Amino acid sequence: MANPEKFDIIIVGAGVVGVASAYYLQKNNPDKSILLIDRLPAAGQANTAMSAAAVRNMFASSTNQLLTDTTIKFIEHIQSELDHDLMFEKTGYLWLLSEKKFKHDSVQMWMQRMKNSSIHYQVYEKDELKSMIPGLNVDFEGDEEAELMNLEQVDYGLFGADCGVLDPTKLVEFYLEEFKTMSDVKPMFGVNVTGLTLVADPPLDLPGEPHVWQNKRVGGVKTTEGDFKADTVVLTTGTWANELLDPVGIDSRTKAKKRQLFVVHAEDKEPLMDILFSRGFNDLGCIPFTILPSAGVYFRPQLQEKGFWVGCGDKFGRAYHYVQQDSYDNGESSYYENSIYPVLSKYFPGFQDSRPVNSWGGGYCYSPDAIPLVYKTNGIIAANGPSGSGIMKADAMARIADALYRGETHAELFGGKKMEANALSLQERKVEIESVII
Amino acid sequence: MANPEKFDIIIVGAGVVGVASAYYLQKNNPDKSILLIDRLPAAGQANTAMSAAAVRNMFASSTNQLLTDTTIKFIEHIQSELDHDLMFEKTGYLWLLSEKKFKHDSVQMWMQRMKNSSIHYQVYEKDELKSMIPGLNVDFEGDEEAELMNLEQVDYGLFGADCGVLDPTKLVEFYLEEFKTMSDVKPMFGVNVTGLTLVADPPLDLPGEPHVWQNKRVGGVKTTEGDFKADTVVLTTGTWANELLDPVGIDSRTKAKKRQLFVVHAEDKEPLMDILFSRGFNDLGCIPFTILPSAGVYFRPQLQEKGFWVGCGDKFGRAYHYVQQDSYDNGESSYYENSIYPVLSKYFPGFQDSRPVNSWGGGYCYSPDAIPLVYKTNGIIAANGPSGSGIMKADAMARIADALYRGETHAELFGGKKMEANALSLQERKVEIESVII
Repeated sequence: MANPEKFDIIIVGAGVVGVASAYYLQKNNPDKSILLIDRLPAAGQANTAMSAAAVRNMFASSTNQLLTDTTIKFIEHIQSELDHDLMFEKTGYLWLLSEKKFKHDSVQMWMQRMKNSSIHYQVYEKDELKSMIPGLNVDFEGDEEAELMNLEQVDYGLFGADCGVLDPTKLVEFYLEEFKTMSDVKPMFGVNVTGLTLVADPPLDLPGEPHVWQNKRVGGVKTTEGDFKADTVVLTTGTWANELLDPVGIDSRTKAKKRQLFVVHAEDKEPLMDILFSRGFNDLGCIPFTILPSAGVYFRPQLQEKGFWVGCGDKFGRAYHYVQQDSYDNGESSYYENSIYPVLSKYFPGFQDSRPVNSWGGGYCYSPDAIPLVYKTNGIIAANGPSGSGIMKADAMARIADALYRGETHAELFGGKKMEANALSLQERKVEIESVII
Repeated sequence: MANPEKFDIIIVGAGVVGVASAYYLQKNNPDKSILLIDRLPAAGQANTAMSAAAVRNMFASSTNQLLTDTTIKFIEHIQSELDHDLMFEKTGYLWLLSEKKFKHDSVQMWMQRMKNSSIHYQVYEKDELKSMIPGLNVDFEGDEEAELMNLEQVDYGLFGADCGVLDPTKLVEFYLEEFKTMSDVKPMFGVNVTGLTLVADPPLDLPGEPHVWQNKRVGGVKTTEGDFKADTVVLTTGTWANELLDPVGIDSRTKAKKRQLFVVHAEDKEPLMDILFSRGFNDLGCIPFTILPSAGVYFRPQLQEKGFWVGCGDKFGRAYHYVQQDSYDNGESSYYENSIYPVLSKYFPGFQDSRPVNSWGGGYCYSPDAIPLVYKTNGIIAANGPSGSGIMKADAMARIADALYRGETHAELFGGKKMEANALSLQERKVEIESVII
């Protein structure tokens, strides 16, 4: 067998975290050869493309606040200063909350922590909301159906103006193109990484090595196009992490869960157009990304196609999987009809009789505390588990991965803020549990 | 379809944690109907039976110290006061350590925490060890092979006299027989639980319920013998936890890993008999359960068959799995020959030319912090993830599961010590990371 080709770094997975990692690793280690591999025909085509592509800095943990706030500011920087249009639009994020939930310790702590981190937000009361969104139903007095459905009324709106939506393929393109201008190694697309190679360190060339008494590390990857060697393998594989990490005995701590988005068009439907163009929240004159008080139902405005992308963050009752399943690819119309629609049309009667014109599915890569895992161990650097918010954390995660590669104790995030490089690690994790996941 | 039979509690998995849970739940809730189910033809036949069946209270986390110390004291109580012979023998546990490791912060903290918890231990120096175990090789001066193998020399022995070995099938029998005398429900063996049933709460009898806007909980199990309903399903499934919990959207946080044991006979082999009957450690006049300084190799004495059970706690490099695999069942002779034997025979030259007469495999159920997970959520009580020490934690884990069932804030462990009932939960976990896992 020919000696496998060798690189300094192999990056597995060209989603948004992978291409951002490629960019920072090459930028800060210009002499290193970096091979970027993805099993799909191009970058950013898996869950990055399937995402609702909304970004928010309104998290409850100071870690997620830092990761997202700096990433979003870098997104703004790309668009406004580097003149690379990402179609980033500051629609804002709006949580609709019952009084009970608003007064709950967890929401009060969330707001307090945002204050501490200078994350701007605004509280709207019911009457203001009602006047800004006339199509919003704020209470269900006497509605027995709503009571059976456990629907909480709307008493408050928690709004963040620095949040928004973007086109993730354009963000992927930015990182990838910049990486390609710096790198001598052509990225490989359509190549599936089937396993990690374990090597003895030092090698003794014994049959079956590495044995338990040998030092060992990951020394490369096996792919559908043959084996490649590397000093460091960077894993930005999202919902496929376990497939590569479990066989070498590393617990990724992540699990995959299906999410779906349903496209509802508003054009020619006055009640939906009225909801979509609710004024007063932003310069776009549109409704923000909105999270309903109950059942995890949410939607984002989609101004280009004059409509909404509707989703649902179901927790208990929606299966986890070891790795992403093929069944994640499709939206299920019965899910919209029986689970999402009944809730949506109660809060926003304008959605009555709405039917999605399109739908798709993708995977969330959950960590147990809903904060990403970025760590270096045994020849691997892994950056995974963004828990549904990879696009809004990618820039920070990639900078941390690069700091770990260079052996720095701290990563410098966009705007100069520092973060301990091992704060997101498996062993020295220093994070609060994130309570605001959608 | 006939209306499924209903129980107050269904316990899935009749390993040692399952039968202990059945015992405490029935004892403290005498009016409740409790069905115990296992897919094997009898209790305790899966990983409980495959274990090295050694018990120790020498852990580094105060949580594991409390769980094991009270469980071992209950084991002694069963044997000496309840006159139920468990073949529990206090062989002791002996860690052989290099000076570097002994002086390391983690070992110093381990000893300090044992002192704080009144866990008795003793430190032997090299010369004492040498005189008590003449067959022990304490250094490898000039041995190039040993250097290539990264073998650390023996400078210290850390010994715990309150540790030992037992027959786990007898412990399982104790709990099961006691449970059966109290219960009106006959345990079901040879019945495989294939899934958990999710029910809407309250039920609305809608097709496809529970929908996302309904409250839901686990309301029973699907089995190869039909469906059964229950108010509470207790999961003591060890390495199969993900198979049942992932589909309902609960991350068990556990992973399975294969472990193997190899039986080496000492009879008629003087050097091995000399090692086996090393005197001075215990009243049995035998060598303790012994952990070598390098590569995770360990053995336990087996006095009845005059020999050793030899194993290896390999960490990085040994695959994790989502659930236990069929390939766990067998010992691999090449693993003994290439990985274990070279290490064992360096420290104990008496093992030279030894070949195992028997071997078997089983599964460890790891949690990320090597401390069990016991929690109540959505109709489930789960007690899993003992991380290779289920037998020595089962009694305490079962008492905590019962306290959670009864809604108590604290569990009373054997000897009257209390533990917060939610200390081992997913959400309110209050534990130190355990550093002394074998």
